[in-house]
Amino acid sequence: MPSSREKLNYTPSIRRMPSYLTIIRAFQRTGEPYISGTYIANELNLEPIQVRKDLSITGIIGKPKKGYPVEPLIQAIEHYLGWDVEKAATVIGAGNLGSALTGYQEFRNHGMKIVAVFDTDPLKIGTTVHGVPVYSMDSLPSVARELGIAIAILTVPSPFAQSSCDAVVAAGIKSIWNFTTVKLKVPDDVVVQREDLSSGYALLSVMMRTRLNRQLSEQ
Amino acid sequence: MPSSREKLNYTPSIRRMPSYLTIIRAFQRTGEPYISGTYIANELNLEPIQVRKDLSITGIIGKPKKGYPVEPLIQAIEHYLGWDVEKAATVIGAGNLGSALTGYQEFRNHGMKIVAVFDTDPLKIGTTVHGVPVYSMDSLPSVARELGIAIAILTVPSPFAQSSCDAVVAAGIKSIWNFTTVKLKVPDDVVVQREDLSSGYALLSVMMRTRLNRQLSEQ
Repeated sequence: MPSSREKLNYTPSIRRMPSYLTIIRAFQRTGEPYISGTYIANELNLEPIQVRKDLSITGIIGKPKKGYPVEPLIQAIEHYLGWDVEKAATVIGAGNLGSALTGYQEFRNHGMKIVAVFDTDPLKIGTTVHGVPVYSMDSLPSVARELGIAIAILTVPSPFAQSSCDAVVAAGIKSIWNFTTVKLKVPDDVVVQREDLSSGYALLSVMMRTRLNRQLSEQ
Repeated sequence: MPSSREKLNYTPSIRRMPSYLTIIRAFQRTGEPYISGTYIANELNLEPIQVRKDLSITGIIGKPKKGYPVEPLIQAIEHYLGWDVEKAATVIGAGNLGSALTGYQEFRNHGMKIVAVFDTDPLKIGTTVHGVPVYSMDSLPSVARELGIAIAILTVPSPFAQSSCDAVVAAGIKSIWNFTTVKLKVPDDVVVQREDLSSGYALLSVMMRTRLNRQLSEQ
């Protein structure tokens, strides 16, 4: 288990893993058994040494001249991320962002299946969002248990963030993906990833200012 | 102007800048003239040395025992990001994600004003999204010129990503925030930031697997 300091250094590498998966899976369709680090680097506008460093975290090392074996590389990345085991997830808050995330196809490819949406609006409860049923917040504990929900994606308005989080924790869900601007208070055994949509905008802003002519993908 | 390699190292720091701003602005309300790096570090679950390193990029250095002067620190971060100059932006695609981003209040605090939404759906054209008018894609060149649009936020379905991007570039917009899964082909003078919603999920996934009991905010 890496220390928190090691974790910090790993974070940009982990962020890039989904992009690696996308590139390598697309390459897999060519039928070639090996993929070169340089090819991956070019596709993502990264330095080849960065790609080698990132991929080594998953425990796989490329062969000189040949590159990485495609199938084992995909498996190593998926295993590193835990995406080889399907997890049930729920979206809390059936607003625009909640609906967008519920309909986001990529999550399915990454082992996350959104099985329920929760809201407090009587007009939304009983309807579906992209085919996923919307339940009342009151039924969170029973539905979470029944469907084995492991992840809660929090998209409620910020004033309701902590109370929704408390309900999620009380329902036994231990992993929260927090799209609100609130720093949540959670017990020690609950993990929270806060998503700040402004952080990508900060990168774009610096590129605009410096006019670095590079297309960055999740760096 | 930093080299691309330096830029790579800066990227996680730039990603954290919006979180710094949020913390420091909230602290500003206390009326205290100085904020300590340790306080900021605690609020964001970062190491104090990381905070000092990040903030030094904006050109500001803390004073021993006192910390950072609050007002100049906010100004330095905003200036570094170019957020001290308001920019007009447009959202291309009036779907769920496009609507969510159009209504996202934080962008206003960061100097980005979404002034127009574009779509091809006749049922959406002429309506508003969170008070912002929805225009036909055909009127992109004229509206972009008239409103001085500098940034396009691309939220169309992936099959329409490149053609929408081409229309944006033809309309003279030089900065694209790309929420599609497509790697866009653009002229050298156009900057693109690709946003992959899966990248935050990758971080959550590793935390779930390793059960690191830390609440991470944009690391």
